Amino acid sequence: MIIVFKRSATEKQIKHVTIKLKKLGLKPMISQGVERTIIGAIGEEDILRAQPLEVFPGVEKVMAIMAPYKLVSREFKHEKTVVSVGKVKIGSKHIAVIAGPCSIENYDMLLKIAKAVKKAGANILRGGAFKPRTSPYAFQGLGEEGLKYLQQAGKEEGLPVVTELMDIRDIDVVERYSDMIQIGARNMQNFNLLKEVGLSKKPIMLKRGMMSTVKEWLMSAEYILSNGNFNVVLCERGIRTFEDATRFTMDISAIAVAKKLSHLPVIADPSHATGKWGLVSPVAQAAIAGGSDGLMIEVHTKPEEALSDGEQSLLPAKFKAMMKSLRLVAKAVGRDI
Amino acid sequence: MIIVFKRSATEKQIKHVTIKLKKLGLKPMISQGVERTIIGAIGEEDILRAQPLEVFPGVEKVMAIMAPYKLVSREFKHEKTVVSVGKVKIGSKHIAVIAGPCSIENYDMLLKIAKAVKKAGANILRGGAFKPRTSPYAFQGLGEEGLKYLQQAGKEEGLPVVTELMDIRDIDVVERYSDMIQIGARNMQNFNLLKEVGLSKKPIMLKRGMMSTVKEWLMSAEYILSNGNFNVVLCERGIRTFEDATRFTMDISAIAVAKKLSHLPVIADPSHATGKWGLVSPVAQAAIAGGSDGLMIEVHTKPEEALSDGEQSLLPAKFKAMMKSLRLVAKAVGRDI
Amino acid sequence: MIIVFKRSATEKQIKHVTIKLKKLGLKPMISQGVERTIIGAIGEEDILRAQPLEVFPGVEKVMAIMAPYKLVSREFKHEKTVVSVGKVKIGSKHIAVIAGPCSIENYDMLLKIAKAVKKAGANILRGGAFKPRTSPYAFQGLGEEGLKYLQQAGKEEGLPVVTELMDIRDIDVVERYSDMIQIGARNMQNFNLLKEVGLSKKPIMLKRGMMSTVKEWLMSAEYILSNGNFNVVLCERGIRTFEDATRFTMDISAIAVAKKLSHLPVIADPSHATGKWGLVSPVAQAAIAGGSDGLMIEVHTKPEEALSDGEQSLLPAKFKAMMKSLRLVAKAVGRDI
Amino acid sequence: MIIVFKRSATEKQIKHVTIKLKKLGLKPMISQGVERTIIGAIGEEDILRAQPLEVFPGVEKVMAIMAPYKLVSREFKHEKTVVSVGKVKIGSKHIAVIAGPCSIENYDMLLKIAKAVKKAGANILRGGAFKPRTSPYAFQGLGEEGLKYLQQAGKEEGLPVVTELMDIRDIDVVERYSDMIQIGARNMQNFNLLKEVGLSKKPIMLKRGMMSTVKEWLMSAEYILSNGNFNVVLCERGIRTFEDATRFTMDISAIAVAKKLSHLPVIADPSHATGKWGLVSPVAQAAIAGGSDGLMIEVHTKPEEALSDGEQSLLPAKFKAMMKSLRLVAKAVGRDI
Repeated sequence: MIIVFKRSATEKQIKHVTIKLKKLGLKPMISQGVERTIIGAIGEEDILRAQPLEVFPGVEKVMAIMAPYKLVSREFKHEKTVVSVGKVKIGSKHIAVIAGPCSIENYDMLLKIAKAVKKAGANILRGGAFKPRTSPYAFQGLGEEGLKYLQQAGKEEGLPVVTELMDIRDIDVVERYSDMIQIGARNMQNFNLLKEVGLSKKPIMLKRGMMSTVKEWLMSAEYILSNGNFNVVLCERGIRTFEDATRFTMDISAIAVAKKLSHLPVIADPSHATGKWGLVSPVAQAAIAGGSDGLMIEVHTKPEEALSDGEQSLLPAKFKAMMKSLRLVAKAVGRDI
Repeated sequence: MIIVFKRSATEKQIKHVTIKLKKLGLKPMISQGVERTIIGAIGEEDILRAQPLEVFPGVEKVMAIMAPYKLVSREFKHEKTVVSVGKVKIGSKHIAVIAGPCSIENYDMLLKIAKAVKKAGANILRGGAFKPRTSPYAFQGLGEEGLKYLQQAGKEEGLPVVTELMDIRDIDVVERYSDMIQIGARNMQNFNLLKEVGLSKKPIMLKRGMMSTVKEWLMSAEYILSNGNFNVVLCERGIRTFEDATRFTMDISAIAVAKKLSHLPVIADPSHATGKWGLVSPVAQAAIAGGSDGLMIEVHTKPEEALSDGEQSLLPAKFKAMMKSLRLVAKAVGRDI
Repeated sequence: MIIVFKRSATEKQIKHVTIKLKKLGLKPMISQGVERTIIGAIGEEDILRAQPLEVFPGVEKVMAIMAPYKLVSREFKHEKTVVSVGKVKIGSKHIAVIAGPCSIENYDMLLKIAKAVKKAGANILRGGAFKPRTSPYAFQGLGEEGLKYLQQAGKEEGLPVVTELMDIRDIDVVERYSDMIQIGARNMQNFNLLKEVGLSKKPIMLKRGMMSTVKEWLMSAEYILSNGNFNVVLCERGIRTFEDATRFTMDISAIAVAKKLSHLPVIADPSHATGKWGLVSPVAQAAIAGGSDGLMIEVHTKPEEALSDGEQSLLPAKFKAMMKSLRLVAKAVGRDI
Repeated sequence: MIIVFKRSATEKQIKHVTIKLKKLGLKPMISQGVERTIIGAIGEEDILRAQPLEVFPGVEKVMAIMAPYKLVSREFKHEKTVVSVGKVKIGSKHIAVIAGPCSIENYDMLLKIAKAVKKAGANILRGGAFKPRTSPYAFQGLGEEGLKYLQQAGKEEGLPVVTELMDIRDIDVVERYSDMIQIGARNMQNFNLLKEVGLSKKPIMLKRGMMSTVKEWLMSAEYILSNGNFNVVLCERGIRTFEDATRFTMDISAIAVAKKLSHLPVIADPSHATGKWGLVSPVAQAAIAGGSDGLMIEVHTKPEEALSDGEQSLLPAKFKAMMKSLRLVAKAVGRDI
């Protein structure tokens, strides 16, 4: 931690900080410059992080040197983590393709989609039973009934399944029916939910909050790992910016950034990021070329009648065509689908 | 709802949409322009909102005409809502000033702060017992013990109290000890939590998400009202932007916007918005002059030792000085403190 | 400047940087921590700023300690600068109110508006003759003819005038007819234009870019001061964010931030920031309460027929009413209008 | 154009708007709904765009139906435009790779870099002679001397050259020495500069403003086309967001969006978007896979000594390695390098 003093800081003020640092068991290194004094505090940065040093008289600013996360960092574990979801190994050479409808609407529709995506090469089935909707008047999902359908459709097609957990009270039921638990973007900083899934035995897919930096995303993953669950997959799904041609802005660089800072696998969700089915295919290709370990794609047999997110869902035929292109791109970057 | 067709849209495609609209019980009004056709769909816009009309072949875009919220809107209820918290009436001529420490650390400190803010003119006491922290390694709050301290300090000083609810499982305990329940920025779209507090008898203070539009904020309030709880106070606390001189960017216009669209009272939190105690006073003055019905301010007797947010906490003496200025500004805009 | 090394940095890499620093005439202070090494480079930070130290092998990051601007800073000149525009002193106790139409459309209209705003208490007349328009098909301004009208209307009413300079080639003509030259938001980083107005004898009003941090804004002002022109007025006019209820987001805290960092006066433009006339009054009040030294307001006698920005223009009657409220707010914060 | 009236709008107010529309030669289509009235105005939308209809009493909002640009749109010209720069055809099957140093520092260095990038497969040489720098104290470029070096190095290696034009007064000199003129992000809305290059015979590369929407970017291109120059190449270079792990946020979807809306070729600049050389390669791959027609890459033989942007420059060896990967990705999406 670096403490920069104001030009006007007095001897006494500098000493006051020095004493505080020593009390905390840290070793202050003072550099007296022509214009100002700075102190480098050597030792456990975490101890300092909790201290509001900026309010000490004479202090201009405090700058952190080390990243606030530990267990998720490459420094803690250098080799890439591979997360197993059924037989699928996310983070391996093989690209994970998670596909399915936004919401589970009924069993027949779900099975039809499951068959179609399986045939086209998807290896994990997705479907929402509890839906976070901005309007209280919108369809909120089928709940446990939907989860049963999901599990059954997965078994039928031999695909592991993933679904979103929104409410701590549903953790048991979601764990029972799914192979991977998704934490949605709006819950990325629902810290108690993170703690609970940290205690789960199931792998967790943690979506990036639309308003969160990569650093905060990693801190949220840290909540899960620090409770004992190391099977976390990060999912970039677009951030909110001023641009309104797309629903969100896919932060393509974040994939490479997160993989550089962390050992966890990173996948991308072009359906939510763009919000428009016509953009899903180019952005999915970009994600794979940019280093993504997988994709999450919304597919619906009748987008016109979908109860949620129809605008961003691909028809099975378009999904199939996209998978064909993706195979070539994956090969170009030394991966396969 | 307006449906705009592509220039290349065929007769058949337009008819396809027309039939769909009629099936939904809506009345399509077709305008055949030189360059393109548009349809105005008259009737319940909500029916249409749930329909992914943008995926219909030939459709270029769909534009909503009406706001998606109802109960929170000025059209539904024209007169301003006044929310009672103990004897304080938020939304009345009198400005509500909620003050106290970010986290409750111990009873003595809390009481000392409560005394100081009461004396300076604050009328509601705040204090966090469950803290949303980005790091799992940071102080997470005293829990129920903290709530007891809060209730007791409030009683001692004759101040109603407000505290944050983060976890649905804590609703009973938070309800028991507090006079108003705060939903934090990171939980603004925790829809199940919103539903639960919609069933509570306690007034709710709903902070705006740091990356939520005013419209989404009102939709979240709609969740609470639609479950029966009309005592909602909105709190603007800064949004996330590219500017890093402040922790967040206080969206001062949002106060006037929200009050124009909704009958609910709106307050402002300059401590979190700026993240720097030196900016709290000018921004608090701006908020009152800009129409805010109240303020939420962090005060700490020893910011240097605060377990959270010390950087943005005012010393009691500075809080007192600020209150003096605020009284003059409030008077200038026809209010009082 | 602080140079933080990677955990994996070698002795040789650290030495390589140390030698470079010494070559540049700086004094490196090395702190060898348990986890990493950091170097504090004492001396002229500007020398270092130009050096891409981050590309040196072993370096993790480089952190600046000092602000990159000098002449605009409070450290360089502690007393507030007062900029004289005719008899108006911007930055004094007296609030500057600059009012007038967005575009100058004809002389009669302009004079009518000038009379109205003067009567209501405005002290500087504004009007655009060269208009930056996003569309090449929109009205681009009357050019020199408009400037003549502006000068004449100003004389008639005894008001100094301000107008925007967009093109370096127009500097002579703009200088000839105006008392203060405005640099618009879209030109805040048109560095050659900044250099030219730095050579002018006229005071400059520098609008903040919609995409610029306060620091960059001050750096742009530094361009002007470093060429010899110290009469610069900063104008906050809203930044671009994800919120679309307003045209831009008025960054109210930026007023206090800029005044803390710089000695230059700061005014606010609520008309452009909000883009809606109904929001101009509350936001203008907020700006004054938040420390603004002045306001820039669009007024039009017939907003329905304005050739630009009619949506955000106040009718003279509304302007008059607003001035009445502003007088009270100004008084509350120890200023007058 | 759709005009939506307030619920409270009177007959008279609606008539007032209707009359205005008819006066403008437009045909109003009135739809009287249960809750509100809307008018669809059929005819030239441009006429209406200039009218501040939102200020008419009773009007709630006005919604545009058509895009404000014409000449750049796919509706105006359906086939993709191919822009020739020397022998390079940007927008063809062949990917354009523009490479070179950020600033031209001296002839030897430039030639060395030109040789290296040519050998690795680049087909256009870049180099800055006039540099837009946020600080007046930073290196501002060699000016005409630099341009001479650039032209000569290009001739020597058989590469067409591109350089940035910042100041209208430099247009002749820049035209003389370059094969393509670059308009930088900070000048994307320098409308007079756009008009001037619209009169040039040289192809123009128009960088997207860091806080401009795709629509505004296309409007700026429209300025150039409407003055007669149809040889415009769009360049996505990252937008400003809250994320600070990268210098800007590469908006990968914008490539596909711009190509859908416009016939102009679109290239990407991963060096400026990321600001970190370690991220250039994955983001360049993503851009090609996402449909980009080309790349602009900063290369420097000694990034440690570069006078600008050393942090984001690739060493020739790394550039060569990247080109190898890019060839595979290009092939996967049916292109070649």
